[in-house]
Amino acid sequence: MNKLIIGLPKGSLQESTYALFAKAGFHIKGNSRSYFPSIDDDEIELRLLRSQEMSRYVEAGMLDAGISGLDWIAANGSDVHVLCDMVYSKQTKRPVRWVLAVPEDSPIQSVKDLEGKRIATEGVALVERWLAENGVKADVEFSWGATEVKVPEFVDAIVDITETGSSLRAHNLRIVDTLMESYTQFFCSQDAWTDDWKHAKLEKISLLLQAALNAADKVLLKMNVSEGNLDAVKAQLPALHSPTVSGLSDDGWYAIETVVEESVVREIIPELKAAGAEGIIEIGLNKVVA
Amino acid sequence: MNKLIIGLPKGSLQESTYALFAKAGFHIKGNSRSYFPSIDDDEIELRLLRSQEMSRYVEAGMLDAGISGLDWIAANGSDVHVLCDMVYSKQTKRPVRWVLAVPEDSPIQSVKDLEGKRIATEGVALVERWLAENGVKADVEFSWGATEVKVPEFVDAIVDITETGSSLRAHNLRIVDTLMESYTQFFCSQDAWTDDWKHAKLEKISLLLQAALNAADKVLLKMNVSEGNLDAVKAQLPALHSPTVSGLSDDGWYAIETVVEESVVREIIPELKAAGAEGIIEIGLNKVVA
Amino acid sequence: MNKLIIGLPKGSLQESTYALFAKAGFHIKGNSRSYFPSIDDDEIELRLLRSQEMSRYVEAGMLDAGISGLDWIAANGSDVHVLCDMVYSKQTKRPVRWVLAVPEDSPIQSVKDLEGKRIATEGVALVERWLAENGVKADVEFSWGATEVKVPEFVDAIVDITETGSSLRAHNLRIVDTLMESYTQFFCSQDAWTDDWKHAKLEKISLLLQAALNAADKVLLKMNVSEGNLDAVKAQLPALHSPTVSGLSDDGWYAIETVVEESVVREIIPELKAAGAEGIIEIGLNKVVA
Amino acid sequence: MNKLIIGLPKGSLQESTYALFAKAGFHIKGNSRSYFPSIDDDEIELRLLRSQEMSRYVEAGMLDAGISGLDWIAANGSDVHVLCDMVYSKQTKRPVRWVLAVPEDSPIQSVKDLEGKRIATEGVALVERWLAENGVKADVEFSWGATEVKVPEFVDAIVDITETGSSLRAHNLRIVDTLMESYTQFFCSQDAWTDDWKHAKLEKISLLLQAALNAADKVLLKMNVSEGNLDAVKAQLPALHSPTVSGLSDDGWYAIETVVEESVVREIIPELKAAGAEGIIEIGLNKVVA
Amino acid sequence: MNKLIIGLPKGSLQESTYALFAKAGFHIKGNSRSYFPSIDDDEIELRLLRSQEMSRYVEAGMLDAGISGLDWIAANGSDVHVLCDMVYSKQTKRPVRWVLAVPEDSPIQSVKDLEGKRIATEGVALVERWLAENGVKADVEFSWGATEVKVPEFVDAIVDITETGSSLRAHNLRIVDTLMESYTQFFCSQDAWTDDWKHAKLEKISLLLQAALNAADKVLLKMNVSEGNLDAVKAQLPALHSPTVSGLSDDGWYAIETVVEESVVREIIPELKAAGAEGIIEIGLNKVVA
Amino acid sequence: MNKLIIGLPKGSLQESTYALFAKAGFHIKGNSRSYFPSIDDDEIELRLLRSQEMSRYVEAGMLDAGISGLDWIAANGSDVHVLCDMVYSKQTKRPVRWVLAVPEDSPIQSVKDLEGKRIATEGVALVERWLAENGVKADVEFSWGATEVKVPEFVDAIVDITETGSSLRAHNLRIVDTLMESYTQFFCSQDAWTDDWKHAKLEKISLLLQAALNAADKVLLKMNVSEGNLDAVKAQLPALHSPTVSGLSDDGWYAIETVVEESVVREIIPELKAAGAEGIIEIGLNKVVA
Repeated sequence: MNKLIIGLPKGSLQESTYALFAKAGFHIKGNSRSYFPSIDDDEIELRLLRSQEMSRYVEAGMLDAGISGLDWIAANGSDVHVLCDMVYSKQTKRPVRWVLAVPEDSPIQSVKDLEGKRIATEGVALVERWLAENGVKADVEFSWGATEVKVPEFVDAIVDITETGSSLRAHNLRIVDTLMESYTQFFCSQDAWTDDWKHAKLEKISLLLQAALNAADKVLLKMNVSEGNLDAVKAQLPALHSPTVSGLSDDGWYAIETVVEESVVREIIPELKAAGAEGIIEIGLNKVVA
Repeated sequence: MNKLIIGLPKGSLQESTYALFAKAGFHIKGNSRSYFPSIDDDEIELRLLRSQEMSRYVEAGMLDAGISGLDWIAANGSDVHVLCDMVYSKQTKRPVRWVLAVPEDSPIQSVKDLEGKRIATEGVALVERWLAENGVKADVEFSWGATEVKVPEFVDAIVDITETGSSLRAHNLRIVDTLMESYTQFFCSQDAWTDDWKHAKLEKISLLLQAALNAADKVLLKMNVSEGNLDAVKAQLPALHSPTVSGLSDDGWYAIETVVEESVVREIIPELKAAGAEGIIEIGLNKVVA
Repeated sequence: MNKLIIGLPKGSLQESTYALFAKAGFHIKGNSRSYFPSIDDDEIELRLLRSQEMSRYVEAGMLDAGISGLDWIAANGSDVHVLCDMVYSKQTKRPVRWVLAVPEDSPIQSVKDLEGKRIATEGVALVERWLAENGVKADVEFSWGATEVKVPEFVDAIVDITETGSSLRAHNLRIVDTLMESYTQFFCSQDAWTDDWKHAKLEKISLLLQAALNAADKVLLKMNVSEGNLDAVKAQLPALHSPTVSGLSDDGWYAIETVVEESVVREIIPELKAAGAEGIIEIGLNKVVA
Repeated sequence: MNKLIIGLPKGSLQESTYALFAKAGFHIKGNSRSYFPSIDDDEIELRLLRSQEMSRYVEAGMLDAGISGLDWIAANGSDVHVLCDMVYSKQTKRPVRWVLAVPEDSPIQSVKDLEGKRIATEGVALVERWLAENGVKADVEFSWGATEVKVPEFVDAIVDITETGSSLRAHNLRIVDTLMESYTQFFCSQDAWTDDWKHAKLEKISLLLQAALNAADKVLLKMNVSEGNLDAVKAQLPALHSPTVSGLSDDGWYAIETVVEESVVREIIPELKAAGAEGIIEIGLNKVVA
Repeated sequence: MNKLIIGLPKGSLQESTYALFAKAGFHIKGNSRSYFPSIDDDEIELRLLRSQEMSRYVEAGMLDAGISGLDWIAANGSDVHVLCDMVYSKQTKRPVRWVLAVPEDSPIQSVKDLEGKRIATEGVALVERWLAENGVKADVEFSWGATEVKVPEFVDAIVDITETGSSLRAHNLRIVDTLMESYTQFFCSQDAWTDDWKHAKLEKISLLLQAALNAADKVLLKMNVSEGNLDAVKAQLPALHSPTVSGLSDDGWYAIETVVEESVVREIIPELKAAGAEGIIEIGLNKVVA
Repeated sequence: MNKLIIGLPKGSLQESTYALFAKAGFHIKGNSRSYFPSIDDDEIELRLLRSQEMSRYVEAGMLDAGISGLDWIAANGSDVHVLCDMVYSKQTKRPVRWVLAVPEDSPIQSVKDLEGKRIATEGVALVERWLAENGVKADVEFSWGATEVKVPEFVDAIVDITETGSSLRAHNLRIVDTLMESYTQFFCSQDAWTDDWKHAKLEKISLLLQAALNAADKVLLKMNVSEGNLDAVKAQLPALHSPTVSGLSDDGWYAIETVVEESVVREIIPELKAAGAEGIIEIGLNKVVA
């Protein structure tokens, strides 16, 4: 039987990845200590791996596809084919950034000032490539943890991952530069992409994952409108997709349904009400096919 | 930029308040030890405070609005403007009561019997006002905790908060009187209410919070009915809101949709089925605009 | 007032049973240490009991109805009336099996080889009946726990409950035979079934529980289709229930709604899209009345 | 090599048993999920088993020795050789009792009143033997848990394990009779006791376990006394063991050391001080060889 | 029978108080939710109470004695008799301080600058008394928690409890003044102190508690010394108590024992070794009677 | 003031290191998230660092001394001065080993078979040096975790840390070779060792740490013996240190004290008793100065 081997990220993203696959229609089971979870699709096998190692094993062909951050694909310099971005939730999740940080009172103001300095980071390859691009020579050492407490006592600067920068600020560190932004991606090997069966299977999985991701930030709005208010109400709805309008048995009344970004609902509900919409309700969605 | 500063209750209500704001369209972030959570609306700033102190700081104008129990507004004697009640869920949440409790075998039968007695309570001001209203003089002392174990050894009676009374009964206490019922409220300062921008912003937030609260106890029922059964089926639906009826492509068939209280569904589904409704389904709701 | 006393299973199924009743419209409250949870229906009283004992007390009339595994009804040899099966989720829950297991290298190959052997199990009555049916005599001893580590040092074989067999394999045990498959059931006493009021009440509860269970594995699919694609799209939908089709205000466009098994969605969404369906969305369901 | 296989109790006694063996000089290692802990004595192998099953497997010879409650040895009716009692700590641990308990208002006043009644218990064999000894016939059913909530709804009486009776009182139950007192014992099979090597090894282990148990309730008291006060001080010391007295380099002064029950120290220290003892100190002990 | 009722502090000190009583020879039992722990001395009854309330109930005679911080005795203005200080461990426990703290950049430099200001504190009475002593008038409001985050937004200054000041510094607060230092005390009512039996009983308990507290910071040092080194070694030992010296069977050798502060051991061991002491060992102590 | 900066290992060894320093007389405080714990010796400053990085920063002079495994000193190739080994407990702690492991059925039988293979390990430098010493060329890749599940799917062999090998066996891996044994060490920089003050301070700390470590596996045995049995009893005591013997006031009786390895006590107590020793007791020790 044809088989697709997919690597999922072990650790902090594991639970939300399982939940996302479930929403996409693939149910994963496996106790927390196992590295070989099972899935209810006989054509797929799963492996749990650290994000840092994922693209290395996809590129080398031991995995057909994997999910990890763009940063580690770049750090490993892996040649892989990206299937789709996976932004788990726009509301609560910003991309992470790899930033150069130094103590508030450090004289370092740009990458150029790093010449001859000592830098600690979890992403040694990433930093070395960036320094080379900038023509700077410096000592880059692998940090096994607690990178942010190492300046200025042990190193001159650090390159660390941050979402909001608040942890860095709490340690009195100043962000000097951003090396890269990163978000989670679903990617496959070039070999898998050129194999017909794997290509089709990967596109199907990607379509369903995107349908589930899409749904996370969208909702269905429903309301009833009398004919006289129909245009006014429609004018308040986002122009992106035209709403579904159907006549009701009560003459002169219409039902409107439309999928909108959850983030605009708080703005348009007062407007819709003012424009004459009645019985407005909001319903959550499992999948939205783009 | 215009800013609205809102106080949210620290403690047992915190998680459900965050969840309610999210359902209303406002996403709050903040680790559990921080008192300054962030929200994805630049016009709002949040503070976490103990319920007991909320109305004091709203009245004094340090906060524009706050969420806390009616009891503590009363205990503080604060002059504030109430925006809406916030009953998180009718099914599982009853209002709390402040009750006068004494040992089963105590001679105390009414507030009048408290003359000259010793009373422990967390709500000293509340009890003192109530005693004064009843023309009774007694020693009211602040209880730092475990109020229910203090009678009869340390005090003659207690005034404590209870929902079902079961904890009091478990300590062999008898409820003599109820001082007040309390539920959570969203309120603002009189100054904020007279400021145009703040007034509008507060009404919008209140509308969305109520839409989310409303949805917690309501569901959408959908079903298909043939023309002959249409009246019989409609007769089973609660009269409050008229259902949405639309004709289907199959001649002589109609689709009915209606929002009903979740609590009546278990009663009407058997009736609807008996009246000829087919394909009955129930869908949960995020918001219901009243 | 008429009263129905129902026993619910204490332990691993308790939380999902409470959640199921809530979805069916019955809200249960009770702290984790209480054996007498309350429910928001004055005609029902609840008791929490171990699954193993449930059918014994239903048969004896101390409970009107109960929820437990078929295996323990059989082990107790109880004469009860089954109202409905309760498969909590097809995706993630397989029936459990009672299996005969021995060490990989044991000479035991069938029930016949158990003659004169020592067997440990939690279900002594179940095993003794099965041995008798097979005309085999063996020592069956009650196992107080950790049954799978007792072979071969303390007993020759065990009869244990398993879902996937993985725990048995991890202990190097081989499954020789399956005594029975079991799943959760809602059942009542013969007396309750012949009482008119209890009979009607039980059927209503059973209908609602099934509506909630049904909904767990089903979803609502909605999409818009132009007239020309209508037949092609309908051909992709499962034949089981005919979909609800209604004309839209835009001439020549139709809205299709249909309830389908969640497990087929991942197969049909790509097909529906290919057949011309637009704006496909999936919505979760609380109840589906069969 | 000669080997002794010892069963240790799985569950609530496990941790204190490991600690006791460590104090006796035997260090046990094994993660909490393993049933085969290792010990730093190549002549011993360990098995973890439920207390209820221990004596059954010792009697049958699969274990040479075991540790469990006297109650389960009796319930199993096992013929084993008792090596020593193991009272982990006199201060904090009383023997447990198997008691007959009924609701406060039950007419049952003695074992005789159980004729024809229904009794739930975890110790079916124990209760059946006791009823037979008293010439009483009753239905004894195995209770899978929560025995104390079964009266009076499901059974007429229960036989349950209790230390202080407080849990029974909390359920409004009255203790009618005590079937037996039980404490932990170290015992071996009759075969092991007649084997020379095992006999010697078991006696050595028993001696060391007792030395460790002994030490738990004893302490070493040391003090200095001048010749004139020597008799007065010695008069305050427990007569059991004569104290060790040695002359100091300072003429006319003596050092006294004595091992006493920890429980009497709080009584005698004020007396010793009054009698002229100086520099009184108390030291904890690891082992006291009787 | 004569009875002494003692209040123990509920909360963070509870576990160490139980441990201290055990070391003193009194064993307390009681599950974590009970307010009436039991003790193995029939002449004593225990109550668990919040530290804040202890002295109030001792003064009023509902308790004979209690353990709480000096600060709350002072805050309550209670007239009680102090039996002994209870410094649980000099190494790891410093006295707590009640300090006036303001934001780093606040103009407030002394108590005088508080005139007309708003102050939040858990110890309202303590602060009001202190302000009165300093002739300053200010608004003192009770803080229900998280006092340190209230400046400067809600109040101008706070009076809070601190041990090292590090939490205040982490909130960018500056300590302006110290209102009082506090440590734990064992105290009784004036009535109990004048009752002969209670007086004697309290002195005995106090002696034993002090013996246990004393032992926490002291150890026994033992060593052997030849006659020639005896004076040199003795010269290194703290002068406080003369060491116990006894001749050994080996002519010309002496054994020395002495109780010393644990904190000096790290200083004197190298010196003792240099002075010729051999076989130096250190032993922990349970009680040291002063 | 002179200062010594010492790095302590963050993580699994942290708690036992704090406990060891406390036993040695140095009390460390610091909440679990801080990297700068405080110590009650003004001449010492502490840093918490990962073991892997310790020797790197000691060699570079940012730390004067550190505690970490010998393996990471070797992996870093650091030139440092070792002060003492720190075997926390002989009974329960064996040295860890870095081993080469392969699947049970792998053809790899020795380091020579690794030529051209792929190896995953947390200690890349360690493995590369070992391969070079053996004249073998192979791909060594850094493993971010779960190394033992990577063979054979992702790599041909792994080099991992193990104490007993049981985790490797559980993954069906075979140990082919041992690269090195490792235990914890206390070491300092060459510069610190040549500085007079730091040299003296380090020797003092080392002496006290060793005294505390020594005490963990030793106990004090005390007993009384009559003159006639004196030689027989002394013959049973380990020859290493001669016991301390002193005459008692009772003519013809002697007290014997001796420090012995805890591991031999279980062997000699039965012999001592047989030889006539009376009142044998065992006492734990805090420090034993070698």
